[in-house]
This record gives sequence, C-alpha cells and structure tokens, in this order.
Amino acid sequence: MGLEHVLNARSVAVVGASKVPTKRGYQTIRTLLDEGYEGAIYPVNPKEKRIMGLTCYTAVSEIPGEVDVALVATPARTVPTVLEDCGKKGVKGAVILATGFGETGITGKALENQVLEVACRNHIRLIGPNTSGMINLKDNLNLVGLKDSPKGDIALLTQSGNMALTLITEAKLKSRKGFTYYVGVGNEADIRFHEYLEFFRQDPETRAILMYVEGMRDGRNFLQQAYQTTEIKPVILLKSGRSSTGKRSAGSHTGALAGMSEVAKVAFERAGIIVIENSDELFPAAETLSSLPPIKNDQIAILADGGGHATIAADNLTDLGVKIPELEEKTQAKLRAILPDGAAVINPIDVAGGTDDNPTIFADCANIILNDPNVGGLLIVGLFGGYGIRFAESLAMMEEDAAHQMGKMVKRRKKAIVVHSLYNSEKPHSLDLLRYYGVPVYGSLDIACKCIGVLAQYGRYLKRYRGKSNFVFNWGAKAKHEGRQIIDRVYGQGRTALLEAEAKQLFRLHGAPVTSDILATTATEAADMAFGLDGNVVLKIASPDILHKSDAKGVQLDLSTKEQVKKAFREIVKNARAYKADAHIEGVLVSPMAGQGIEVIIGTKIDDQFGPVIMYGLGGVMVEILKDISFRVLPIPRRSARRMIEETKSHPILDGVRGDKPYDKKSLVSLLLVCSEIIESYPQIQEMDLNPVIIHHEGLSVVDARILLKPAEDEAKSGPAL
Amino acid sequence: MGLEHVLNARSVAVVGASKVPTKRGYQTIRTLLDEGYEGAIYPVNPKEKRIMGLTCYTAVSEIPGEVDVALVATPARTVPTVLEDCGKKGVKGAVILATGFGETGITGKALENQVLEVACRNHIRLIGPNTSGMINLKDNLNLVGLKDSPKGDIALLTQSGNMALTLITEAKLKSRKGFTYYVGVGNEADIRFHEYLEFFRQDPETRAILMYVEGMRDGRNFLQQAYQTTEIKPVILLKSGRSSTGKRSAGSHTGALAGMSEVAKVAFERAGIIVIENSDELFPAAETLSSLPPIKNDQIAILADGGGHATIAADNLTDLGVKIPELEEKTQAKLRAILPDGAAVINPIDVAGGTDDNPTIFADCANIILNDPNVGGLLIVGLFGGYGIRFAESLAMMEEDAAHQMGKMVKRRKKAIVVHSLYNSEKPHSLDLLRYYGVPVYGSLDIACKCIGVLAQYGRYLKRYRGKSNFVFNWGAKAKHEGRQIIDRVYGQGRTALLEAEAKQLFRLHGAPVTSDILATTATEAADMAFGLDGNVVLKIASPDILHKSDAKGVQLDLSTKEQVKKAFREIVKNARAYKADAHIEGVLVSPMAGQGIEVIIGTKIDDQFGPVIMYGLGGVMVEILKDISFRVLPIPRRSARRMIEETKSHPILDGVRGDKPYDKKSLVSLLLVCSEIIESYPQIQEMDLNPVIIHHEGLSVVDARILLKPAEDEAKSGPAL
Repeated sequence: MGLEHVLNARSVAVVGASKVPTKRGYQTIRTLLDEGYEGAIYPVNPKEKRIMGLTCYTAVSEIPGEVDVALVATPARTVPTVLEDCGKKGVKGAVILATGFGETGITGKALENQVLEVACRNHIRLIGPNTSGMINLKDNLNLVGLKDSPKGDIALLTQSGNMALTLITEAKLKSRKGFTYYVGVGNEADIRFHEYLEFFRQDPETRAILMYVEGMRDGRNFLQQAYQTTEIKPVILLKSGRSSTGKRSAGSHTGALAGMSEVAKVAFERAGIIVIENSDELFPAAETLSSLPPIKNDQIAILADGGGHATIAADNLTDLGVKIPELEEKTQAKLRAILPDGAAVINPIDVAGGTDDNPTIFADCANIILNDPNVGGLLIVGLFGGYGIRFAESLAMMEEDAAHQMGKMVKRRKKAIVVHSLYNSEKPHSLDLLRYYGVPVYGSLDIACKCIGVLAQYGRYLKRYRGKSNFVFNWGAKAKHEGRQIIDRVYGQGRTALLEAEAKQLFRLHGAPVTSDILATTATEAADMAFGLDGNVVLKIASPDILHKSDAKGVQLDLSTKEQVKKAFREIVKNARAYKADAHIEGVLVSPMAGQGIEVIIGTKIDDQFGPVIMYGLGGVMVEILKDISFRVLPIPRRSARRMIEETKSHPILDGVRGDKPYDKKSLVSLLLVCSEIIESYPQIQEMDLNPVIIHHEGLSVVDARILLKPAEDEAKSGPAL
Repeated sequence: MGLEHVLNARSVAVVGASKVPTKRGYQTIRTLLDEGYEGAIYPVNPKEKRIMGLTCYTAVSEIPGEVDVALVATPARTVPTVLEDCGKKGVKGAVILATGFGETGITGKALENQVLEVACRNHIRLIGPNTSGMINLKDNLNLVGLKDSPKGDIALLTQSGNMALTLITEAKLKSRKGFTYYVGVGNEADIRFHEYLEFFRQDPETRAILMYVEGMRDGRNFLQQAYQTTEIKPVILLKSGRSSTGKRSAGSHTGALAGMSEVAKVAFERAGIIVIENSDELFPAAETLSSLPPIKNDQIAILADGGGHATIAADNLTDLGVKIPELEEKTQAKLRAILPDGAAVINPIDVAGGTDDNPTIFADCANIILNDPNVGGLLIVGLFGGYGIRFAESLAMMEEDAAHQMGKMVKRRKKAIVVHSLYNSEKPHSLDLLRYYGVPVYGSLDIACKCIGVLAQYGRYLKRYRGKSNFVFNWGAKAKHEGRQIIDRVYGQGRTALLEAEAKQLFRLHGAPVTSDILATTATEAADMAFGLDGNVVLKIASPDILHKSDAKGVQLDLSTKEQVKKAFREIVKNARAYKADAHIEGVLVSPMAGQGIEVIIGTKIDDQFGPVIMYGLGGVMVEILKDISFRVLPIPRRSARRMIEETKSHPILDGVRGDKPYDKKSLVSLLLVCSEIIESYPQIQEMDLNPVIIHHEGLSVVDARILLKPAEDEAKSGPAL
C-alpha cells in the first residue's frame, strides 16, 4: 500500500490524547485545531470525555467515522495492543512516537518486531517508532506539535528531531522558503527512506527533497529511487557518522578497506544526490536548488565590489571544481563602458567603486555578464543590500530597483544568480526582494559559493549521467551454464571457497584473461609441464583448505630450470603439510610468470546497507599504505569503471611515466565490467578478490583469484541478496 | 622608529579636508569629532578657511602645533609633494589612501618608490598606500570614517577593506566583542605586517590579533615576530589566493613543486598562528581565542540535548583532530544520577529530554563534566537558549540562571565552554549572558566545533612547541673553512653551479654520507678505479656545462666488468659531446652502486616571501604523481625534520612493510638537519637538490647532489639573503 493515506490522511486519531499542555497528546490536538486541519480529529483516552471541545473515545475501535492515521503517543509496551485495536478499525497508518524499541538493544528489537508483525497483519503502515512525527504542511496535518512551520516546496526527511527543528527554524528565520512535508523516519521499522522518496517524487508541489541520514536500512532500494528522483527534482542529503567508520575494521582484506561512508558518498552522488558535508550548507543548498535552474555549463562569473571577497570566492569555487571562465572580449568592453578605469572585467569582475553612488549598476553588470554565452550563472559578493546602510539611505531605493531587475533577469534568462551580502543580517528590503524572485542571499561567503557550486554540480549530473546509471541487478541474466556448474559443484562438495583454478575458470568463461594454470600432482609432472610453457614459471599450492597460499609458503616465483621446478614442488607440498597437517592437497598449480606491468587489485563484497560493492586500487604499497582506492555499488556501467580508475590518485602511472609506454587501461575497464557481470550472474557469491592483476602495455593477467560463496543454507533460503 | 606616534597619534592633519559629505576628507573629520577624539585635528585644504568649525590650513607645514600623523586623502600624483611638506613640519607618520601605486604596474611602482624615498629621507613612517586607513579605537582615532565600530580587545590587520568591513560588521552584530586597532596594510610600502604585529604584541589591551592576508612582502620577519607573539597572545589568520598557486609553476624541479601556499600554511602554523581556511570561521575563532583559555589536554566533551547534533559534532571534532575521551566512571555515575534512563553519559553526553522542563540541569551537567580530569573543555550543542521559545516562556529564566552558573564556572575553573544554539538568531537573553562571561555562542554547529577546536590547537602549540622553533639564521656560524674555499673557487672560475664532486664534498664536510666518486680521465683509468671498489659501479659525466646528466645520456648504472666500464666511459663522453659540443669535460665520475633501499629526494630553494625553504619527499613515482611532499621554512630543528617525514602519506614505507625491516629514519633526519646547516652556513646558495638519496636499513647514501649559487654580483652586493 502506498503512503497516500498516511501522509495525506483525512482523519486522525490521537491515542494518548491529554489535557496537560506539556504532553504531546495535548500539543498535537491543539496544533491541528489552531492551524486549521480540515480533516476529522479523534482524541482517544479512556479517562476523558472531551478534550478541547472534541469528543474523546475510549479506543480507536470505538470511533464512529473512518480513521486514516493514528498518532500513537503512548509508551512502547502499549503499542502492540493499540495497533491491534487500530486494526479492528481499519486504520491505514500509524505514527509511533515512543522510544524503547530497536535503538535500545535486543529486548527493544523484539518489541519492534512484534509491533511490525501486528501492523503487517492488520495492513497498517508505520512511521517510526522512535520518531518526532510527521507534518503535511499543505493540509495543516501537523502531528509534531511544532507551531508555525513555514510552508513551501521542500520535503524534509530526517533521522533526528533536532536536525529537523534546526532546518525548520533556519527556513523560518533566514529564508522565504518552507516545506511541503516533514517526516521523521525514526527506526524505519516499516516505511523506509526509499518509500518516502518515491512519494515525494510523485508529489507535484515538492520541488526539492532535503534529507539528514545517520544510517539506512535498505540502501540499494534507496539508490534506485534516488536515481529516478534526481532526474526530476534535486535531493540534498547530509550523512553523519563519518568518524565511526574507523570502527568497521573487521572482515576480509577488501572489506576492511571498504568503509561504509566512502561507498555511501560515491553511491549517493552517482544517483545524482547532492551530498553535503557541512551542516551549515544543508538548508541553503536545498533553498538554492529548489529555487533556481541548474547551471548547464559549469561556468560561473563572480561580480564583486572589492578585492578580498572576490579572491576568497575564486579560491572557494576552484576548490569546488567549478570553472571561472574569462568573459568574451565583447562582454569585457561593455563592462568597461559602464565601470571606472580601475575595474577588473575579465572574471572575477570588480566594480572598483563603480557602484558606490549608484548600485543599480549591479543590475547593468549582471545583465551584461549573463548575456555572455560562457557564463552559466553569476555569484555576486560583497556589500549589495548594504549601500543604503553604509553610504546613504537614498541608495537603498536604487538597490531595490536593482533587485527587481536582477530577479526578473533570472526568471527570463533561466540563469542563476546567488548573492552574498555582508549586510544580510541587517535584513535590508532589497535582499528580501531578491528572495521573493527566488534569488538566494547569504551572509556567509562560503555558503554562497557552495550554493552556486551545487547548482553547477546538479547541472553536471543532469547533463552527463542521465540514463546511464542504474542500481538494479538483472540477476543471473548473463550466467553461463558451466559457471553455474562450478558453483553447484563447490556447494556439492560442502565448500564455500572456490579453488583458484575454479575461480579462474569462472573468469575465463566471462572473457577475462587469466593466467593458465595446470595442476601437477608429482614433481616430475610439474617439471614436464613447466617445460611446455614459454619462459619462467610459478608454482602454487592447490588445496581447498589453504586459502592464503603465501601465508602457507605455498608459492614460488620465477623458476627457470626443471631442477628448480622439482625442488619447488617438493618444498611447497612440505610447507603446506607443515602449515595445515590435515589439508587436502590436490597438487601444485604450474603457471607461466605474468609479464611485466603494473600491479592492481580488485575486490567485491556485500555491504550491509548497499549490497554488492566493488573496490579497485593499485596494488602493493599503494593500497596498503596510501589506501589509494575507489569504490562503487554494483552493477557498474563502463563510465563508472573508467571513473573508478581515474579517481585513484596514482592512476597516471597507468598512462606511463618517465618515458614508459601507457598500460592497457581499456582491458582494465573491461575486467572491472567482467567482475560486475560475474556478481550479477551468480548471486551466490559473497566476495571476490583479484590480487594481483598485472596490467601490461597490451592486455592484462589475472594472476590470482579468490571467490567465496555465501553459506549454503543462506543461498538455499534467500536467493539473490538485496 | 616605532609605530607608537603613528598608531597612537595625539594630533592629526587631514590633507584633502572637504566640506562634501561623500568625500573621505569630510567623513574622517566628522567621525573624529563625533566619536570624541581628544587630540588636535587640523584640516588642510588651500581652498577653505574653516571646515566643521575647525581652522583649515593651506599646507601641513603651516599648522602651528605638533602633528603626529597626516591622513593623506589626495590623489596618488600629489603624494610626494604632500610628504615633502609633512617632512618640513616634522610629521611622524602618514596614512596614504590613494590607489595607483605598485598594485597597478611599473609606473605606479616607480611612484611608490619615490614616495618611499621622500618618506625615508624625512623620517615619516607610512601606512599604505592603497589602504582603507587605520583606526585606534582606544583613543577614538578613527581615520577610516567607519562609524560605530565596536571597541574591544582584538587587533585587526587586513589587506582588504571589504574583509575589514565584514569582520567589524560581524563583531558588531553577532558578538559582544570589538577591536583595539584596525589597520589596512595596503601595499606595505614602508610599514610591513611584522612591525604591526610587534606593536600589537606589546599593546597590553590587545588580547588577540586577527589577520586577513593576500600576500606578504617580508614573510621571514613576519614568522619571527609571529613566533614571539603567539607565546603571549593568539594570532588568527586567513590567507587567500590558494587557487593562484597553480600559476607558480616555473623554476627548478623543487621550485615547481613548492607552491607558495603550502609552505605558507605550514610555516604559519609552526610559528603558532591559527590558520583559518573558511572565512566564516575567521571572526569566531578570534572571538573564542581572545575570550577563553586554551585547552591544555586536547580532550573535549560534547553535551547535547539530541542525537543529530551530537553525531555531527563528534564527526567534526574528529576531523579537527581533537579527542573525545570517555568520561571517568565517577563522572558517569554523577550524570546518571541527574539524568533520565535513556541518557548517554560516556561522551558525547545526551541528556535525553532531561532538560526539557528544567534547563538549569545544563549547568549541573557542565559542572560535573568539567570536574572530570580528562576533560579540557566543553562543547554544548542543541537548543540551549531556546527552551523559553520552544517549550514554555518560564524556562527562559532557568536558562538565564544556567548561563550565569556556566559563565562563572568558566572563570573559576579556567576550562572553556563553547555553545551552539539553534536559537542563536532569535537572540534570547540567556545567550547574551553567556557572551557577557566570555562564553562564545554560535548558531552554526560547524563554527562552534571549529572554535572549541582552535582552543585545543592553540593549547597543543603552547604545550609542545614553546621555545623549540625559530626562524632566525645564524649565518655562517657553522661554515667550514674548506667549504668556503669550494664556493670561492666556483665563483672564481666564473661558475654558479657546483660540480657533483664539489657539492658532495660540501655535504661530506658537514658529515653527510655521500657516495664516494673518483674522477677518471681515461677509459683505462676508469676501469682500474672500478676494480678498486667493492661490487658494481656507476659512471657519470663530470662537466660544469652539463647539469642534467641523464638528459645528456651521461649516466650508466650497474657496471660489473672492466670491459663494461671502458665501453661505458667512451659512450658517456661521446654522448656528452653530442649533447653539448663545446662542453668542458673534466672526465667521468666512478662510484660504487648504492645499496638497496628507499629512494627519497630533498631540495631547498629561496621562496620569494619566506627565504630559504626545504622540501622532502619519497622519490620516483611518489613525488612525481602523488606530490607526496612536505615543506618547511629553514632553519629546522630536529623535531621539524621528524615531522616533515611523518607528514608524507607514504612515510610508513620507511618503517618497513610486508615483513621488510625498518629503514634508517634517524639518518634521514640527520641529513635534513645537515641540509639546514649547509644553507645556514653558506648564504651564497640559491638552491640545492639531493636526488636521489637512498635510505638503507642502516645508514643512507646521497647518490647525487646539485648545488646552485646566487649570481656572483648578488652575492657581492647583498650578503645573506633575507
């Protein structure tokens, strides 16, 4: 069932209604009445007859009319009973405020599961528990009791009541913006982030979605919904909990490197979400993105009335990766014609006192600058709005004139203007006028820069990514028959780890150039096989019981003579027995030495929140010390594979340095895509490690491959993960 | 002459005095009169008799009384004449407002030099030109004409009038703080940053110094003054122009890597300056540091009334490198006793609704927390100040009570409290009370975190660095007689580049382990010499005309037989002639191959603003692609040498990875100190490159060394640089 009946409820029961003004069961009814909610309000409290003039019911099931949603303001332990009663009535949704559920530990989690069971059985959708509530501002359906929240076109979705309060307060005091909905998601016991997102996407009055997230239960579905949403309207998100990533250090080699936060940020951004790091920038970014068109060409002009602000803005925008192009000669000439001699007209533009006695010249400059085809948006920094305060009162009228002109300019040209004014906190009328036209104004230069920056970022996304990303697996579609057989055989033998030869065979089936290995069971056999290969050889132990071959001293490299090979065979087998006496030894793999090249590693694992993810990095010291790695949620398209490589700081090594020829990046891209395809083909795979892969000037060699399957029972029970 | 008579002038002449209210020559006199400046004011304008009731003089020299300072508000071209006239009068200082000097190009620079010459000859100290002026708020000596600037204990020193206006406006509107002085340094033609800094250090009423810098003429003296100043009072600085560093790509290899900004930031921080990156944080950092004691143990507690803010604060403080320690069990128990069950008491502390009906509990918690010996300072985040707004008006009185308690607590315990309040912009009285006690309050969570962060940073500096850094060279003190002879010989031969053998000899003299080279002049000689060395050898061309030996194919490595050596000798000489036909070839250097190890590079150069600087990095790909390098202004103490190594991301390689033994970092530290000593010993050195140096498990080998001297005429003329 959709969320329509919950978020747009036309009747509300307040369970735990109260006459005590400090109680939530009082405040909610008071606010619903005061703000003019037009639906039916039913207080529920067995001890009261009437509350605030409304008839009070002993139970939800006693209410005569229909009830869309129940606000449950009673303690945690009462919730299952309340919901059973709601079920009798056919209530469609419930908002559970109480704490004391999954967030407190095992007992609470059991209670949460019980609540969820009752809700499912009775077809009741749940917001919360452990939520501050929900507000539908369009219908004055305010279940939070927070008065005078501003109405507008932003949907607010958070996991912290205080952060919601912060953002609502900020909207009220510092902008002309407001909200369509507010939802505190709480524990996400039933309705999760992605369902709210889908709802807000479909709501015509919501122009942007603002989110604060601490953790997410179903990241994969969220990404998919986000990806569809950001094509239509911007999603702005702050995720906290960066510092806790240090705790997630367990797991396999790849797992240990793949911190949740890292993959989250890159995944969110791939889905077109504007990820914000500083909480100060969160609301302003939403304000700007909901008010102005994205910047199409990533190129911004800066208009200043002083050097300092222009320099700082140029620094900030450069850090944000935005271009500050030179204006066309024609544009420069027009600016020169209206500005004094000392003015800078290339970009940043400094009016050099040219606006001191006539701030309408700001509008003239803006008009000339936005007319330049190189310029996608304009950032005005400095004193605008304060000329009437700083210099002479009469200038305030001119600033208002300029504000009207610039406001209309933005509407007409569909190019953004963002304004920084150091007089913002004095609230001059001209700045309010700008906001009336949807031009955001900030007292902080850093925030103004960030805001024009996110317009450029969103523009880049819409231009380049549209239709190219996707977070849905087509499970098994490209699986090979023989590949399935390998996996069945592994399970059949009671194993979950593929032998190196099996793993490599799987890669070979999907077209990856793996080094060929031959299994030798005696020293002489190994020597004969080695003789059949070009150049020197490598010997590696083959045993289902030894996964980390180097640890067992089960690898010898660069062997050239028959004698060396025989000796190596004997040593490897001996070492393996010493390492694990009861290991089943199948023999020793003989392979040709991979040619010279650059060593890289690739891994996949299943992330708790996002499902299968892939990691790439240059091998050796690079990955171990510098952690110079990149991540993606799988599956990945070709573009993402390329970007993964480019995101590592050391990637220019692949282009060849110090006169070296370039290495075969194209093959590397293909290999990343093969990894993606294999994960998509065989949902049984838990994790995969290609370490090392050697990239040659032409082609590459997968030297070692390790694949672990999910435990057999999981596989049988659950089918494809996430 | 000191700045006393200029910045504390007891009489002012205003040259270019005016009756027109929009003119600076009017505004300044108006402001001096309105704000009650007690010194003499002398308008100077040949066309007027009286201005604002004051007698107007035709020239400064006509003024009957003494004149400490002249504000020169006339155009650039008139300034030399005005100053000559000031000279006649014995004026001690002048503030030159006009633009059109060095900032505009060569002609302007010539005029600036002329002005400086007149000023020096007449013993007049100059502020500017191209300055917005100067204000001494203690004496109401306001030469800017900016009215109602708040008085206080911060000295403001900037290179942008608009940034000064921003900071003064911010102080006025958002704090209870203000300024002792404001100086716009302008072009630094005469008085430079470091002299102002010295003056402010000595001013007893100045508790902190706030700076905005775009560039600096004499960085070395500034560092020295800063280093002395930050022991006594904090210096807070924002330096803009990061993005322009990309342009400074010329110069030698080391030069190209050593971007100005990089060395500036690390040098400033070594001198104890608090370097701020975001302009939003600049004034708040100064407010906090001028109001509260530094945090001594780098350990901070977070007190919150909700999860979201606590999580974000913990992330931010972790990013800032501050510790968030667990509270002692005793402290936790005390908190538990006054807070509800759901409260978190380890750190961050979440009151979990415990303050909802009694916000004085904030003061009780603060008292308990600050009593914990682990806690050096407290950050309170959330709704404090807004309980009276959000919940019930009566709670406002309790908040005021808590504010009084916490304010006194800070004074008594000398431990800092910084407060974030989302109700800050509603200006509740309780928050103003906190500020009255010197407890800063911010509406931005990010800024509040940064502010408690800088208290910890300053505390760390005072604790660890005191008395250990220094930016003064003791030129030549440790020079060796033989070293001086080498340099004299190079100059004597009309060269500025040392031969490799000469450079290595210089290092050897100062105790660095360089590889020994022997000069062979024939192939047979080379072969014989090679025979005398252990192991394989290297041959390198020796020519004063060939500095980049590899480019000339003048190096051959790893030669083992006599025949190989002979052949290599002939090829190298042939290649050298082909590379540069007229090169004077002294012969070929024969050296032993350096043992295995980690390759690093070290370089020095003379920075435009800071003088000699040193660069260190791991060699090869690390430095070329990853730019994994660190810088210091020379000279460096042992601690800095160690920190330089630790600052490179790749430094764990030196500790030995993958079972490798550690490399000899101690020798590397010593080599960095030798470089510092050599630069200090021979001021003639322009730049130095050790590339590569091989670090062994024991000891190291300087394989190649390049030293360039300053041009002979510079050396003769100027003596030691900077």
